[in-house]
Amino acid sequence: MPIALRAVILSIAASLALPALADEGMWTYDNFPTEKMHAKYGWAPDAAWLEHAQLSSIRLTLGCSASLVSADGLVMTNDHCVRECVDDLADAKHDYNADGFYAAGAADERKCPAMEANQLVAITDVTQQVEAATAGKTDRAFHEAERAAKAKIESACGTGAEIRCQVVTLYAGGVYDLYRFKRYQDVRLVFAPEESVAFFGGDPDNFTFPRYDLDTAFVRIYDNEKPLHTKDFFKFATRGVKQGDIALTSGNPGSTERDDTLAQLQFQRDYLQPYVLNQYSELRGLLTDYATKGAEQARTSQTLLFGIENSLKAFKGRQMALIEGQLMTDKARSEAAFRARVAADPAIAAADGGAWDAVAAAQAHERDIFVRFSLLERLPRLSTLLSQAIVLNRYAAEIGKPDGQRLEEYADANFPALKARIESTAPVYPELEKTLLTWWLTKLRENLGSSDPDVGTLLGKRSPQEIAASLVDGTKLDGPPLRKQLLEGGADAINAYHDPMIDFARLLDAPARTVRADRENNVAAVFTKNSALIAKARFALDGKSAYPDATFTLRLSYGMVDGYQEHGHAIAPTTNFAGAYAHATGSDPFKLPARWLDAEKAVDPTAELNFASTNDIIGGNSGSPVIGRNGEVIGLIFDGNIQSLGGDFAYDGSVNRAVAVDVTGISEALRHIYHADRLVKELTHK
Amino acid sequence: MPIALRAVILSIAASLALPALADEGMWTYDNFPTEKMHAKYGWAPDAAWLEHAQLSSIRLTLGCSASLVSADGLVMTNDHCVRECVDDLADAKHDYNADGFYAAGAADERKCPAMEANQLVAITDVTQQVEAATAGKTDRAFHEAERAAKAKIESACGTGAEIRCQVVTLYAGGVYDLYRFKRYQDVRLVFAPEESVAFFGGDPDNFTFPRYDLDTAFVRIYDNEKPLHTKDFFKFATRGVKQGDIALTSGNPGSTERDDTLAQLQFQRDYLQPYVLNQYSELRGLLTDYATKGAEQARTSQTLLFGIENSLKAFKGRQMALIEGQLMTDKARSEAAFRARVAADPAIAAADGGAWDAVAAAQAHERDIFVRFSLLERLPRLSTLLSQAIVLNRYAAEIGKPDGQRLEEYADANFPALKARIESTAPVYPELEKTLLTWWLTKLRENLGSSDPDVGTLLGKRSPQEIAASLVDGTKLDGPPLRKQLLEGGADAINAYHDPMIDFARLLDAPARTVRADRENNVAAVFTKNSALIAKARFALDGKSAYPDATFTLRLSYGMVDGYQEHGHAIAPTTNFAGAYAHATGSDPFKLPARWLDAEKAVDPTAELNFASTNDIIGGNSGSPVIGRNGEVIGLIFDGNIQSLGGDFAYDGSVNRAVAVDVTGISEALRHIYHADRLVKELTHK
Repeated sequence: MPIALRAVILSIAASLALPALADEGMWTYDNFPTEKMHAKYGWAPDAAWLEHAQLSSIRLTLGCSASLVSADGLVMTNDHCVRECVDDLADAKHDYNADGFYAAGAADERKCPAMEANQLVAITDVTQQVEAATAGKTDRAFHEAERAAKAKIESACGTGAEIRCQVVTLYAGGVYDLYRFKRYQDVRLVFAPEESVAFFGGDPDNFTFPRYDLDTAFVRIYDNEKPLHTKDFFKFATRGVKQGDIALTSGNPGSTERDDTLAQLQFQRDYLQPYVLNQYSELRGLLTDYATKGAEQARTSQTLLFGIENSLKAFKGRQMALIEGQLMTDKARSEAAFRARVAADPAIAAADGGAWDAVAAAQAHERDIFVRFSLLERLPRLSTLLSQAIVLNRYAAEIGKPDGQRLEEYADANFPALKARIESTAPVYPELEKTLLTWWLTKLRENLGSSDPDVGTLLGKRSPQEIAASLVDGTKLDGPPLRKQLLEGGADAINAYHDPMIDFARLLDAPARTVRADRENNVAAVFTKNSALIAKARFALDGKSAYPDATFTLRLSYGMVDGYQEHGHAIAPTTNFAGAYAHATGSDPFKLPARWLDAEKAVDPTAELNFASTNDIIGGNSGSPVIGRNGEVIGLIFDGNIQSLGGDFAYDGSVNRAVAVDVTGISEALRHIYHADRLVKELTHK
Repeated sequence: MPIALRAVILSIAASLALPALADEGMWTYDNFPTEKMHAKYGWAPDAAWLEHAQLSSIRLTLGCSASLVSADGLVMTNDHCVRECVDDLADAKHDYNADGFYAAGAADERKCPAMEANQLVAITDVTQQVEAATAGKTDRAFHEAERAAKAKIESACGTGAEIRCQVVTLYAGGVYDLYRFKRYQDVRLVFAPEESVAFFGGDPDNFTFPRYDLDTAFVRIYDNEKPLHTKDFFKFATRGVKQGDIALTSGNPGSTERDDTLAQLQFQRDYLQPYVLNQYSELRGLLTDYATKGAEQARTSQTLLFGIENSLKAFKGRQMALIEGQLMTDKARSEAAFRARVAADPAIAAADGGAWDAVAAAQAHERDIFVRFSLLERLPRLSTLLSQAIVLNRYAAEIGKPDGQRLEEYADANFPALKARIESTAPVYPELEKTLLTWWLTKLRENLGSSDPDVGTLLGKRSPQEIAASLVDGTKLDGPPLRKQLLEGGADAINAYHDPMIDFARLLDAPARTVRADRENNVAAVFTKNSALIAKARFALDGKSAYPDATFTLRLSYGMVDGYQEHGHAIAPTTNFAGAYAHATGSDPFKLPARWLDAEKAVDPTAELNFASTNDIIGGNSGSPVIGRNGEVIGLIFDGNIQSLGGDFAYDGSVNRAVAVDVTGISEALRHIYHADRLVKELTHK
């Protein structure tokens, strides 16, 4: 399941005329289809249930979901959501990723350098304010007006260390909502298992079911150096799930493109996805070999490789959804039908009828620039050091501008996150940095051509290897104190500071800004404006009966524990510990940790470990609680099956399955394998 | 330009109803369109010209073209066509690839371990014999009858060490021709330049123009330990080419799919090419990092990496041709139009009308099995040692069967090539072998799934790394004497021999044969049979006015030296030495060798180095001579521009360009940079 969120193109709204299928939908908390769920399941959550679930849900800003599971701020999420923290705390002598981590006493809990937890406390509709600002504008003027309006609303809402305010674009511009979050930046690691059992089956079993993974971790939110006291948390269920149990997931699906137009999906299928698949495949090969250079190289590159393999499998699944089956044909048909309905209503047609063609024209422009955008604005971020240099250099340039005119990530509302990132104490690995920079510069030259002016500016007469070595060896930005000092010194201090890495970031800045501005003004802004028109046409003809595409904001999905059919076989909805032991081979990625092998007789072989459910989820939902009708947490989402990957574009209830750890399996493992008595007592009061 | 030929699917014939465009066509020597060329250029070759050119043309069995250029058996080809030889002759102390090779005296010429040169001496039509054998048969019976008929004809023609007879399928089954070649297995290296100038500009400039490459090498054919004496050879031109000069290329284009049906192209676009692009991208990343492990790792992996990057760029170009522009639309339209013409003629319709649907059905089946086929039958060959084990093991199984019932590569006609391969003294690199085997086994498990029975058979409970190490460390097949001894001992000796590698090849054999037989009987045979029907419908309606798709057999293409327009700029058709010096940067891949820098003042800066021409070529044409109207060789094909890559599916004369070294540039470099006086004298008699 993707940890990192893709943000390659803005998604756009145009919900289709088809009725939502059974269990389909990533619903916002303020528009949950209570009646529809009740009609199918004979029960649906009431307002109190919803409020409690919302406040017990946590978003991790690095791209995961989570939930509060004790009155003392204990938070449950996936092991793969805390891997960066586990890596950051590790060193050459302590490989917590391989060996696991457990804080036996409260004092042993350790702060995660880059982790932030957010709790959604309020939603306010601000559509009218934004629309008043953008009315009558197009392209660059539209984009700037929208940015300024959003920044103004966010600033007015609050920007301190304890509050994050975000104007969320829903229905791709049909609705703007202000989301207010409480921010917690002191998050400490409590428990993470061995990676071999968290990710048992590894890449081969990733995005499949049945599974046998303990992809579970616990962190704790601290507030003023003390565990957060909270009344909002989910109690642990004490009985394993069974077929047909009602299951709801509360989490933050990252992004979907279900409302994209046909032209946008064609771009994905023919250009964007093939490009990403090739780049990631090559990077995967590079890192696979890099890890064979030594134990330290393996340790320091593992998390990045995991993320890439994970994304790669997800992209492959998505691409197959676009190539095979009826998805594109259905999209073409439903889009044509809806356009015909719009054309038939003179008032709507006059206002919104040209929207599809405008989107298609902007999409054609993106086709010409997306590779340059990726190479100049995204891929440089593979290097932590260059990323830090870019952020500092741009901060110096942006901070003097009015809030609403800055690049979005430098808006006041985002400053706390920016600061945390710049001051992160996460270690940097010079050899890996050089490898990634060399690779990026090689791709830059390969894709833009050796005679491209931007390539000439950046490479001159030096080779990628030479440049990478000189940047990494010459920079002092690997030291958090220097970065903190530069940030505090502001634009003057940053502009006066020189080393090869930040000077290179300065060289990169103009070409990168140029293509970014082109994309924001001539692609993204056109998408937003016209997708909003399509959404309004939909509201006018069908009301607000549909859910918006995913935007890494909190959504509730309802469904049930359920098996499915695959290649003519029935797949049961649950697995147990006996299955894990039966699948162990002694070799990676099917090697169980020694603790597990030693404890085999102590564990109940029939205790449930993983289960599948019909919930509509996508990357970003990792770590979401699965909640039963009584409000207890019954599971922990950690994956979807391969059929769920097409969910980026459409949900197919017959085979699309979310995959979760059963919380009773978590209790069983903590009790009998890890002897994590302090944690067991906190979770189960036993 | 691809060295290795793709043989992923059999190409099929169905030449389109469109008239051949100017300069389009890879013509067989027995069907050259003399009138058409004369109409355009006011001149065309006569019979004597054609016979001389045919006999002066050479095919290198590893996948390249070449030509005789002296009465003493001197052969000119590309440096990239002798790289395997250069690598094989090199050792840790002599890096001929980096430093170049020149035999200053006759005694210094060194035998290339795995190189064989073939000269086409006769073409005979055997269509009736093959069709008599396949009449009324379908699927497996058709495939076996065709195989048997071809093997019988080839055996009757000759199978000795000096003759290679091959039944060539043209028009995808519309015509079968028997090609008789003289074989030369003693080929010795005379000259190869530094790779940095042979492949100046490297991967970034590959498949582009203007270029500045000396991608040139000379080998010599020996016959009975003496240089071959021959009356057929091309004299070196003494004046550089200019815009509009008539140019013909005589070489062996590997494969094209211009006559494929729409269903076949859709499979290429949606399944085969994306799969290959991802696999090659990953392998490229793997080897890119592998080369950073040390000078020896870089040296031993360089040729493989070069081949992969080259194929990758070619595949990307081909894929873009299928995605962009009108190619698929044109194919759909012309196929529909031709099917309508067939349907309108009751006699033809009854015989051939169902052919397109039969091809589409077989193509749908290939979609289900091509990944398994690739993983079990093709990718294992990445490892030289496993490849040797597979070949020996299969030889033992096949040699007892009647000739026509064997797997094709074990037919009597192919025995000499098989023997040369088994007895090759080319070195094997254990660390690289382990890396490639590990990667293959990992892909096998990833793509077929960890619970696939074939994966279970091959991996058991061991990891890919463990298996790769045990196979490579445990085998003795790295020794040519043992392999020779096993081959001479025949089936009994081979079957009695055990080591981990050959035992693993035995384990792999049944699953690999199963999927191969499925593909040969239910895909390839259906293609051949039905493509032949389509070709016959074409012959019936339009005569034999078209050229057949490329099949790595000798073809003549006519055209002229010509520039073109790109991104609104006019590109001149020739480059010179001054341009090479101007583009040098001192860093790979734009670093000229020291010899070149030292000789800058001695070289005529205006001497021509490379040129572009309108000739219709494709991978396999590497090393082809470019011949002027007076029969002199004027150039040496080494590449095509990026626009030529779509030539796999269609030729676009406005931008499709072949790229060649001007032979006067070769003379200039040999004389003033390499001081290769013996060679210069032989080539220019000066």
